[in-house]
Amino acid sequence: MGQGMRKQITGFSNPTVKYLRSLRDKKHRKRAEQFLVEGLRLLEDARSGGRLPRQLVMASEREPHGLLDRLERDVEEAGGEVIETTPDILSKITGKSNAQSVVGVFDEWSTALQTLDRSIAPIWLVAQSLRDPGNLGTMLRTGDAVGAGGLILIDDCADPFSAEAVRASMGAVFTQRVAQARWEEFVPWLRSGPGQLAAASLREAVPYRSAAYEAPCFILIGNESQGLPEAYEAECDMRVTMPMKGRADSLNAAMAGAVLAYEVLATLDGQS
Amino acid sequence: MGQGMRKQITGFSNPTVKYLRSLRDKKHRKRAEQFLVEGLRLLEDARSGGRLPRQLVMASEREPHGLLDRLERDVEEAGGEVIETTPDILSKITGKSNAQSVVGVFDEWSTALQTLDRSIAPIWLVAQSLRDPGNLGTMLRTGDAVGAGGLILIDDCADPFSAEAVRASMGAVFTQRVAQARWEEFVPWLRSGPGQLAAASLREAVPYRSAAYEAPCFILIGNESQGLPEAYEAECDMRVTMPMKGRADSLNAAMAGAVLAYEVLATLDGQS
Repeated sequence: MGQGMRKQITGFSNPTVKYLRSLRDKKHRKRAEQFLVEGLRLLEDARSGGRLPRQLVMASEREPHGLLDRLERDVEEAGGEVIETTPDILSKITGKSNAQSVVGVFDEWSTALQTLDRSIAPIWLVAQSLRDPGNLGTMLRTGDAVGAGGLILIDDCADPFSAEAVRASMGAVFTQRVAQARWEEFVPWLRSGPGQLAAASLREAVPYRSAAYEAPCFILIGNESQGLPEAYEAECDMRVTMPMKGRADSLNAAMAGAVLAYEVLATLDGQS
Repeated sequence: MGQGMRKQITGFSNPTVKYLRSLRDKKHRKRAEQFLVEGLRLLEDARSGGRLPRQLVMASEREPHGLLDRLERDVEEAGGEVIETTPDILSKITGKSNAQSVVGVFDEWSTALQTLDRSIAPIWLVAQSLRDPGNLGTMLRTGDAVGAGGLILIDDCADPFSAEAVRASMGAVFTQRVAQARWEEFVPWLRSGPGQLAAASLREAVPYRSAAYEAPCFILIGNESQGLPEAYEAECDMRVTMPMKGRADSLNAAMAGAVLAYEVLATLDGQS
């Protein structure tokens, strides 16, 4: 396991470089069912969340770091591969001029609804057609903060395994559960067990501060520009509205999710 | 004022094109004290907020639009200039392959603290070293939603006149007041009138749900990765903390600002 035994990549045209570069593209990620995580901090979040990369690609001129040494050992012990390459090739892989000195390649995990156990948490976030990967990552981070179980992505959302979503989640993608489903799958799954579906709504709705939230509460947030389809709102057990004192009629989706999630948390904590 | 009298730009090397392109760069914006706003929607937000561009640059092959006609008229009546150019040149100016078909050039306005009248609103947002222009724009949008007076940017923050901040603000940059100041200027200004300084803190603090907020309440949010310097927190009248149930020790800065601002709004509304 010494450094001498490691795979070295020195050529830009190496097929591994080409493959890793391709994972920046959603279409290729979907086909390969793998994704990239950049930087020691996120890789350490992954490790402590129980996720190890299949491959660890490190710059040859990196700074020594105890956490990186442990990560290398864990990856090798789990049967993964540690690869050394040049900083320039790492930049080529990530598409960033000042790339992090380490990148991990992870297998995507299942995001089927059936993998969720709703009994593990009192709050779940549900986003419909959330297009911005930054908002997606932020919602995962909010979920972590309020002790949610995870984030359920309805219809056509941004990819939770994109570099931007992973980065914006600050590692919460490794600890929050993530599911992806069409609305037509989500509703039967939801109704097959306990759960209150509460939507942030612009239509007829009760004030969000005085609503009777109940665990497990599924907080549904609509698309950034369209809001929720009327039929989706009709399916909800509760529609709540937040004050809008200004000229705009809605908050940023991630923002509405955070304000509402903290309100639900306070209500549920007050009950217990 | 007919279309025939308009200035036409057809060459990529035209000095106006070069100048407008340069406004994408913060350094050039600061020197010129002008900034670009892309797209009819934001330009209409500006107009209804009382701000008109000095110059309006439109693609020659745009769709006709009643709002755009009114904007053209208003710009010309205010002594501004309407310029027609090709979609390709507009793309060159904005740096986007599918550029909006209209761009406005605005004079920056003063962001001196002295321009703020604290008596106009019960809530003010204050951000310290906020680096992400998207977060800055989102905070302006949150300010609009809670009926805040504006956003005060302390120390080295992102540029409120950058395209990304303007876009993320969804036009709130035209209605919320924006000020920029060093901490050493801000504190004497704050203490020269009524106002409670309340910080979202990770240190010794009271729970944010039971704090005695008072108008005008200045909500202070720290830098995305460092939080607030200890000396800044010491200056605050109140430090409040939000529950963090997960592995992370802090929320996204814009998110913390929104949750706290809505809490302050509910408290102040309950008092009145």
